[in-house]
Amino acid sequence: MPTVEILSQGDEVVTGQTVDTNAAWLAAQLTELGYDVVRHTTVGDRIDDLVGLFLEIGERADMCLCTGGLGPTDDDLTAPAVARAFDCPLVLDEQALADLIGKYERAGRRMPEVNRRQAHLPRGSERIDNDWGTAPGFAVQSPRAWFVCLPGVPREMKKMFDARVRPRLQERFPVPPARLVTLRTIGVGESNLQEVIGRFEEPDVVLSYRTMLPENHVKLRFGPEASAEHIRQVVERIANQVQRWVFTVEGYDEPLLGLDLGGGSHTEVIARRLAAAGHTLAVAESCTGGRIAAACTALPGASTWFLEGRITYSNAAKVAQLGVEPAALEAHGAVSEPIARQMAEGVRSRSGATFGIGVTGIAGPGGATADKPVGTVHIALSTPEGTQHRALRLPGDRERVQRLAVASALELLRRTL
Amino acid sequence: MPTVEILSQGDEVVTGQTVDTNAAWLAAQLTELGYDVVRHTTVGDRIDDLVGLFLEIGERADMCLCTGGLGPTDDDLTAPAVARAFDCPLVLDEQALADLIGKYERAGRRMPEVNRRQAHLPRGSERIDNDWGTAPGFAVQSPRAWFVCLPGVPREMKKMFDARVRPRLQERFPVPPARLVTLRTIGVGESNLQEVIGRFEEPDVVLSYRTMLPENHVKLRFGPEASAEHIRQVVERIANQVQRWVFTVEGYDEPLLGLDLGGGSHTEVIARRLAAAGHTLAVAESCTGGRIAAACTALPGASTWFLEGRITYSNAAKVAQLGVEPAALEAHGAVSEPIARQMAEGVRSRSGATFGIGVTGIAGPGGATADKPVGTVHIALSTPEGTQHRALRLPGDRERVQRLAVASALELLRRTL
Repeated sequence: MPTVEILSQGDEVVTGQTVDTNAAWLAAQLTELGYDVVRHTTVGDRIDDLVGLFLEIGERADMCLCTGGLGPTDDDLTAPAVARAFDCPLVLDEQALADLIGKYERAGRRMPEVNRRQAHLPRGSERIDNDWGTAPGFAVQSPRAWFVCLPGVPREMKKMFDARVRPRLQERFPVPPARLVTLRTIGVGESNLQEVIGRFEEPDVVLSYRTMLPENHVKLRFGPEASAEHIRQVVERIANQVQRWVFTVEGYDEPLLGLDLGGGSHTEVIARRLAAAGHTLAVAESCTGGRIAAACTALPGASTWFLEGRITYSNAAKVAQLGVEPAALEAHGAVSEPIARQMAEGVRSRSGATFGIGVTGIAGPGGATADKPVGTVHIALSTPEGTQHRALRLPGDRERVQRLAVASALELLRRTL
Repeated sequence: MPTVEILSQGDEVVTGQTVDTNAAWLAAQLTELGYDVVRHTTVGDRIDDLVGLFLEIGERADMCLCTGGLGPTDDDLTAPAVARAFDCPLVLDEQALADLIGKYERAGRRMPEVNRRQAHLPRGSERIDNDWGTAPGFAVQSPRAWFVCLPGVPREMKKMFDARVRPRLQERFPVPPARLVTLRTIGVGESNLQEVIGRFEEPDVVLSYRTMLPENHVKLRFGPEASAEHIRQVVERIANQVQRWVFTVEGYDEPLLGLDLGGGSHTEVIARRLAAAGHTLAVAESCTGGRIAAACTALPGASTWFLEGRITYSNAAKVAQLGVEPAALEAHGAVSEPIARQMAEGVRSRSGATFGIGVTGIAGPGGATADKPVGTVHIALSTPEGTQHRALRLPGDRERVQRLAVASALELLRRTL
């Protein structure tokens, strides 16, 4: 099995200003593909350290994925270090330069002179185009290891890995194809999933968990030896145990307890269902402050099913924008079941949407009372058949309470679809 | 200056199931103390890899902080690896054993036999008591490096570092603290900053850049030798060069070109100014779909200055919620200057807020036309003195266009405050 290392470059990572999520993301992708990730290393912006590391890793690994150090500034040292380590001087890549100039032109700007630097790649390297930002990446062969160098901006790095690197890895280092089945869950913690599933030991199957907040995934990785019947049995057994939290399944296409098999994120599954049924949504948010709307409108084409959001942070706005009754606010307070219901019903009737969501709560750190502590959240869903309500007591700080409230409100909607 | 490395151990980290926040946290503490963190390394549960690493690091660093691998099970290998690398066999530490047994007793349980393992420490090492969990840590001197091994559970690790490790480090490796001044900018790329500042070479100062989208930071790190006058000169020179993009400065408290010296994120600076002036804000969002409201309401206490948001994704909602004129929509299209202005003015007058923001644009990938490509965004700010407008052509995909539009709209507001 090919051994892989991961190298992260940047003072901001080595000094702890930034948590290195790139390394974890890449390691998870590579592990899923069947490679053996044996080491991550992070160094700062010092060329001698980098050159030394490239030489070390070049001798002991089969491939190495590197992130960072491809920017236009003097402290971006990945290409110069590769050039020095493997004696392949930087040369201007005309196509890379044309691409860079074009990107600036389309943004109506002239390319700063310093960016020319990003078009210089180690001689003999393979350019990896970056359609999501400025810096191109490149791949280069050392005596043993194949190095792939990508930018450190997580979004660009991930897009480039998915579109350009993964296929090349699989071609260069073919490993017997494993089969991966992923059960995507929401509304449950990893330790609960572990407890429900218990000790798992099966030949040719590795079970693992992955947190992608607010989702938790249960992953079943079947080796090439696993039979179709064995796969079916294991998937059904595990799906049966965690069924109540699963919103979609990936990598499996036989009927499975009535679960959605289309894959995708929680909002993608909801968007697919709404669009298919010709249904529309409007949201009224208080403590989530626009996060439900933002989650919906993050998806391309949301305008076919997402009509509008009303972020009624003040009581006055709840009354004026949603028709919430001042007497109800007076009697129950803004964080209460009646207000959540009136918000959901108000936004549904005023927007003409099929469904209306209302959320009100105390995200903290202030605003709590003895009977309404931080984390108290009321969610309501107004539908053509009536209004549903859930009272929640969510754990964590402001950010976590807001994030969990968004997931809970959308999950209430999903279960109705 | 003593050089420091950080070593993380665990299959869950090296395979990417867990993001290694320990390394970043420790690195930030050590950097603040004035040490030079040069490398982080992560390896999985393989004793040969670990022994090799301890030997490597033991030769090139002055100290190394290690986390993980102190648990009671067979894949917890830190102590055995240290023992093998530095020829200091594990011996039972009677005090550690008594502490372990005591912890279990106080929890009303008998200590499982496997946990005896955790009371065996490398001969000649110094025990580091753990009052927050079971596993004690230890420190051991290799030929060059001083290794400190702590558990991988973040909470225990942090408490032990604060209470027991930090004081020992400062005693063993006394360094005068460095001084860090950060200029936080928005609306400018790192390469533009670099071009404006040019080549920077000053004794006792290191200049670096850091991207924390949508912000870019310019950091000046002054060594202990730098005089107050030198610091003042350098900070003023750099601030002068990038002034137009700086929204706040951290680590500096003398008057500086009228810049804000309060620190904090872009939204925190805006919130502070709004709250201080008793001003309020309401937002009308189309292409940003709730992201401006979410950025505002991410801050605790936003309810004192953030009144409401109206996410008018459909034209019907723009008319009904904001009073946008159907004739203007017809004549100019939803993505146009007049509509952005009407949105800003509509949300301001209907909410009664001091300021109203309106944003309309094409985030893509669909919806573009020849004269309105993806990235076309109109932002408007309605104030008591009238309405301002900016037409933008933003680069990137949907997510990036949305994020940049949020930053641009909030920056338009900040410059008015």
